[in-house]
Amino acid sequence: MQNFRFYVPTDIRFGTDRLSELPEALSSIGKRVLLVYGGGSIKKSGLYDKVQQQLVKGGFEVVELSGIEPNPKIHSVRSGVKLIRKHQLEVILAIGGGSVIDTAKVIAAGVFYEGDPWDLVVDSSKIKQALPIVDILTLAATGTEMNRNAVISNADTKEKLGTGGAELLPHVSFLDPTTTFSVSKWQTAAGAADILSHLFEQYFNRTKAVQVQDNIAEALMKVVIDFAPVAFENPDDYGARANLLWASTLALNGLVGNGRSGGWTCHPIEHELSAFYDITHGIGLAILTPRWMAYCITHDPSTHEKFAKYGEAVWGLTGDSQAEIARKAVRTTYEFFEDQLEIPMTLQKVGIETTELVDEMSQQAVVHGELNTDGPFVRLDEEAVKSIITSCFEEMTLN
Amino acid sequence: MQNFRFYVPTDIRFGTDRLSELPEALSSIGKRVLLVYGGGSIKKSGLYDKVQQQLVKGGFEVVELSGIEPNPKIHSVRSGVKLIRKHQLEVILAIGGGSVIDTAKVIAAGVFYEGDPWDLVVDSSKIKQALPIVDILTLAATGTEMNRNAVISNADTKEKLGTGGAELLPHVSFLDPTTTFSVSKWQTAAGAADILSHLFEQYFNRTKAVQVQDNIAEALMKVVIDFAPVAFENPDDYGARANLLWASTLALNGLVGNGRSGGWTCHPIEHELSAFYDITHGIGLAILTPRWMAYCITHDPSTHEKFAKYGEAVWGLTGDSQAEIARKAVRTTYEFFEDQLEIPMTLQKVGIETTELVDEMSQQAVVHGELNTDGPFVRLDEEAVKSIITSCFEEMTLN
Repeated sequence: MQNFRFYVPTDIRFGTDRLSELPEALSSIGKRVLLVYGGGSIKKSGLYDKVQQQLVKGGFEVVELSGIEPNPKIHSVRSGVKLIRKHQLEVILAIGGGSVIDTAKVIAAGVFYEGDPWDLVVDSSKIKQALPIVDILTLAATGTEMNRNAVISNADTKEKLGTGGAELLPHVSFLDPTTTFSVSKWQTAAGAADILSHLFEQYFNRTKAVQVQDNIAEALMKVVIDFAPVAFENPDDYGARANLLWASTLALNGLVGNGRSGGWTCHPIEHELSAFYDITHGIGLAILTPRWMAYCITHDPSTHEKFAKYGEAVWGLTGDSQAEIARKAVRTTYEFFEDQLEIPMTLQKVGIETTELVDEMSQQAVVHGELNTDGPFVRLDEEAVKSIITSCFEEMTLN
Repeated sequence: MQNFRFYVPTDIRFGTDRLSELPEALSSIGKRVLLVYGGGSIKKSGLYDKVQQQLVKGGFEVVELSGIEPNPKIHSVRSGVKLIRKHQLEVILAIGGGSVIDTAKVIAAGVFYEGDPWDLVVDSSKIKQALPIVDILTLAATGTEMNRNAVISNADTKEKLGTGGAELLPHVSFLDPTTTFSVSKWQTAAGAADILSHLFEQYFNRTKAVQVQDNIAEALMKVVIDFAPVAFENPDDYGARANLLWASTLALNGLVGNGRSGGWTCHPIEHELSAFYDITHGIGLAILTPRWMAYCITHDPSTHEKFAKYGEAVWGLTGDSQAEIARKAVRTTYEFFEDQLEIPMTLQKVGIETTELVDEMSQQAVVHGELNTDGPFVRLDEEAVKSIITSCFEEMTLN
């Protein structure tokens, strides 16, 4: 286990019927609010009206920035920064999933930066200060509600990049499982794949003696595996939604990642798919992940031990050798996405019809993700990434 | 899963060679320090000198309160409050295990209370404000380094009681596994039993749909079971000490307990043993816990399901029925303490020779622990507690 600092002072308010706490949570920070949200879903669900009632009751001055898209774009960040400066706002209230909260984070930092906020995405060291953020989460997926990270896309440059800083950690996050009841099957599946991918990215790692972190990763994987199919079938199952929501937060708040170093793999590759094709992030991850796993166990037998551990601890698999259990684990992961969550498991099925951009995406992934280094669990050069992405155009076979 | 708030802004500095961060951690709070510690162990280990070097370098004014005992006493708290008032100190630096840090916590609150600080132990609602605490932990056990709780004894009244408040949460906790290398086998075993007991107290609980919390509890139990025997045999094994230390912190910082309600059982009973006989807390827990488990599965078949789950998930046990796996799980727990950690498993072996105080202790445990209510996993009246304590005078038999 390596040295680490764990300092995550986000105030989590978990559960139902807590919006009456919103005025108190905001007013200790400021009375002039930028309200950031996405499309009409929070209006349809009634959440928008409930929040407005509290804001009116609390006497807040509110300016709205709506229309935040999935794979949120830098132009939304620029708009938010302008609104805050124009109206001298003091706090950001973000209502939505990861896209909305990530946008709020970079807006919060952009206010204190003189240049174009895209600079803060390209180079996180330029983030020095940020407005406080309060959020109301509506999707179990990214974990942004309790961490320092944000991912923003730039349509002009075809880039989707992560940034982060201690200043971006939300002050208060409201996590109400009932706000996720209206999440579609598609987004429920994508969210589950995103949570699992966060756990995989941290768990498949070479640092020794991180059993606390690994055991917690397995614990949370089992939650997703048990409850994502329940939420998929019964969207209003409170217990399933609550467990998924809390697991999504803990999967990426430092508990699993601290005490070790190493890079991520599937996320950087998926970011290229989303940057070039704007597909749903979690779905892209579900398609990529089993192929990446298959690549690992096929090309690097030293990975069999950890994949076998995963198969045994998370899926209860057995076998005559680590290689066999590892192979079963990869196959089981693929089948979970395909059978339990009904995710379309090839790129054609999500609208990526040809391989014409595979070379360019692979090149970018290696650069942005630093994949051809000792960071990732298995080092990947451009050819390796190409073979992984290319394999996503066919049903996975793994004998 | 019930509603909960999770807000634990302790700044954890985990790992080796971080004492140079101490001046920065303290000076943001104050320059006038009450240094609280126990006996000579931190002088023998060299930790005291290293800390003093940093304090001198940082130009701190330091007043010392040493001699904090295990099962820390209210008279130490009173002394600390007097010193702080006399010297107008601004921050408490606690170096030690749970006893030292718990003492620091109640001193910190006592400074802002006009009456006798014992009032704050008897009635936590009287805690309104506290001085900031920075600590350097030297023992993996109580979890106090990242929570709001403290346990203090009163020799005059033969009481050992818990108290707590948000104000008592340490600001910064330094967790260096190498500071625990010098912990004796006895204290290593006692600490492991304390961690496991914290997990059991929260895990054996009737709240539904808390799989995140239960899975994390199992994850941490497995860490203790895997690494406590390693640390016991090889005190300088960094990986084992690191995993035990981080597990001890996470076992009682809210992660396992949030989202559910219910009372504790073995801790309140053990507090009576410690209050009357001043035995080592963790050892008392190790002796009591398997007898309490045996009582549960013998008297309440509705507990078999959870004990069987525990046996399967944590110990990998199998059997023909939940009752059988539950019984094996209790037996395995007993043998772990006795065989792996060499804990003396009867009360006579820790110096409690007669049963003369069993009635009085049982009575007090039921009152202080609210055991004869719906809180605990299994409701216990005075007779039940008597039978559990009495069974601790003989080797456990469980067929």
